[in-house]
Amino acid sequence: MVRPARGRALLVTTDQLIEGIHFQWSWSDATQLGYRAGAVTLSDIAAMGGVPRYVLLSLGIPPRTTVDIVSRFCRGLRALLSRHRVHLIGGDTAAAPQFHAVMTAIGDIEPNGAVSRSGARPGDLIMVTGTLGDAAAGLHLLQTTAGRRVGVRTRTRRASPKARSVGEQRLIRRQLYPTPRLHAGRAVARHRLATAMLDLSDGLTIDLDRLCRASGVGATVISEQLPLSPELMAYGRRARLDPIQIALAGGEDYELLFTVRPARADRCAQVFRRLRLNCCCIGRIERRAAGPRVTVMRGGRRRAAGRFRGYEHFRAPMMPRI
Amino acid sequence: MVRPARGRALLVTTDQLIEGIHFQWSWSDATQLGYRAGAVTLSDIAAMGGVPRYVLLSLGIPPRTTVDIVSRFCRGLRALLSRHRVHLIGGDTAAAPQFHAVMTAIGDIEPNGAVSRSGARPGDLIMVTGTLGDAAAGLHLLQTTAGRRVGVRTRTRRASPKARSVGEQRLIRRQLYPTPRLHAGRAVARHRLATAMLDLSDGLTIDLDRLCRASGVGATVISEQLPLSPELMAYGRRARLDPIQIALAGGEDYELLFTVRPARADRCAQVFRRLRLNCCCIGRIERRAAGPRVTVMRGGRRRAAGRFRGYEHFRAPMMPRI
Repeated sequence: MVRPARGRALLVTTDQLIEGIHFQWSWSDATQLGYRAGAVTLSDIAAMGGVPRYVLLSLGIPPRTTVDIVSRFCRGLRALLSRHRVHLIGGDTAAAPQFHAVMTAIGDIEPNGAVSRSGARPGDLIMVTGTLGDAAAGLHLLQTTAGRRVGVRTRTRRASPKARSVGEQRLIRRQLYPTPRLHAGRAVARHRLATAMLDLSDGLTIDLDRLCRASGVGATVISEQLPLSPELMAYGRRARLDPIQIALAGGEDYELLFTVRPARADRCAQVFRRLRLNCCCIGRIERRAAGPRVTVMRGGRRRAAGRFRGYEHFRAPMMPRI
Repeated sequence: MVRPARGRALLVTTDQLIEGIHFQWSWSDATQLGYRAGAVTLSDIAAMGGVPRYVLLSLGIPPRTTVDIVSRFCRGLRALLSRHRVHLIGGDTAAAPQFHAVMTAIGDIEPNGAVSRSGARPGDLIMVTGTLGDAAAGLHLLQTTAGRRVGVRTRTRRASPKARSVGEQRLIRRQLYPTPRLHAGRAVARHRLATAMLDLSDGLTIDLDRLCRASGVGATVISEQLPLSPELMAYGRRARLDPIQIALAGGEDYELLFTVRPARADRCAQVFRRLRLNCCCIGRIERRAAGPRVTVMRGGRRRAAGRFRGYEHFRAPMMPRI
C-alpha cells in the first residue's frame, strides 16, 4: 500500500529484461543485471521528468537458477534503487522456462508537469544528453571474444585475468550499468524546457522516429553534431567500425532525447551547465513532408535514417547487433 | 499519467502468466488467457479490499506468435477489464523465447482500509467465499483427454464437436474464467469484517499456511465444512477423485479466504446474504503450537495439512497437478 504525495500526478511505467533477448548469461552477471533492470525502468520515469518512488519486481526463474543468482540480482537492483532513494515494495516470483525480470516503477510529478513524446513542433531543436553509441560499442565488445578479455564476470564468476584497456572497460560499463538521467529529466520538466522527450533505449533513429510520429513532424539529424565519446572514437578505429553509424543505430544508451523551442535554447544550456551534464543539439524538427520521417545529413548529403536502424523487437535477430 | 483519488491510499500488485508454467497452448485460447490474466491480477486487489483502477500489461511474445493471438489476448483482457471499469493504461512488448504476460494493477482504498494477511488472532473463524476445488477439477479435465472433448477452443480455434456435460463445462469455466471477488473484498473491507484476508491462488492449505505464518498463528480446517459444488462432487465420483483433497490442494479458485472475530460472524453472514454470495466457515484460528501450522480434521482425525499441498512454484513439476 502506497500513500501518494498530495496534489501530485502519478507516473507508472513497466519494462522487461528477458534472457536470450535483452541479455545472455554468457556475458552477464546477476548483480549487474539487477542493476541494469532497475536503471532501465527508472529511465522511463526520467524521460517524463518525474521522481521515481517505488518499484515492483516480477521474476520468472528457470529450474537451473541458484538462490545465489537470484539474491545477487536483488543486490544489484537494490544498489541502483538505494542510489535514487526508490523502494522495492513488492512483486511476484514464478517458475519459468527462461529467466525474465519485469519491473514496474511508480513515480510522481506536479500535475500537468509530465513531458510527453507528442509536443515537438517544426523549428524545435533536437537535443541529447551525454554521449551516444557507447553502450552499443560495449555490447559489441561483450559479444565478440574481445568482451571476454575485458574482465566482465560471467555467471560462474570467473573474472578474466586482464582488462584490455580503460576505454573499452568504460564502453562495457555503459552497456552494463546505464545511468537513468533522473536529475536531467527533472530539470527539463521543472524548467519547462522541452516540448517532447523520451529516453534512448532502441537507438537514436528508431526513438527519434517514435517522437516524430507521436508529434506528427519530421526531423533532420546532423551526423557531425552527434556527441561521440573519445572511447567510442578509439574503439571505432581499432575495430574498424563507423562511430557515427553506432551512435545513430546503437541502442541502450538511456540518454534523454528532447526537443526545445529555439527561444529556450540558452536557458537549456544554462540548466545543463549547472547539472554538469553534456547536452547538445543534434538537429532540428521539421514539417512532416513526403519521404522518410527522419533524415540524416552526412558529409553534405541527406539520407533516410532507415539506413541506420537500431534494435527492433519483432524484426531483428534475437540479440541486437550493430 | 494517473491522477490518484484525493485522500485515498494506493494499492499496487503484479502477477504473471507464463507459457508452460501457468498454461499450455494445447488447452488454452488466447482470448481466455487474456481474460484470466486480468482476473488473476484484479483478484489481488480484491484480497486487500480495494477498488482496481488501472492495469499495465507487459507481454513477452515468441517468434511463432501471430498478430491474431496477441489481439485476441488483448480482447479477452479488455472484456474482463471493462466489466470492472478498469483501464489498460500502458505496458511493454518484447520478443521472448516463451509467451508471458505480466500484469500490474493499480487500485485505491480508504487510508488504513486495506486488509493484510497478518491480523488473524486465535479464536477467529476461517471463512471462504464461493466453492473450492472447481478450478482444479477443471484443470484436471483440461489436462486429461476428457478436457479436449468438452469444447474448449485450442489455439488453432478448433472447437471440439460435443460438450461432455454441463457440470464439467462449468468446472472448466471456473479454471479458464475465474471471477475476481471484488464486490466481496470491498464489502469485507468497508464493514471491517476481516482480521486478515488473501485470495486463494495456490490452494487452500498453502494459502492458509501463508496467512497463518504472516499472523503468527495456527489453524484447524474442518474438512466436512468445505464448500463443495455439486459439479465437483459429481466429477469426483466419475473420475474417482477425492473432492475434499481437490478442495484442500487445488489452486486457482480465486475465492477469498479471510478470518473473522466470532463477535462479527453474524454481521458477516448478513453482508454476504445481501451480496448473494456463498460464504462459509471452514475452521478456526488457533494459538501457534508445536507441529504443523495448519491441521485438517477429517472423519474425527487430525492430520497435518502438508498432506494436502497445492501448487508450489519451485517444488512441483511444471504444471500444477491435483
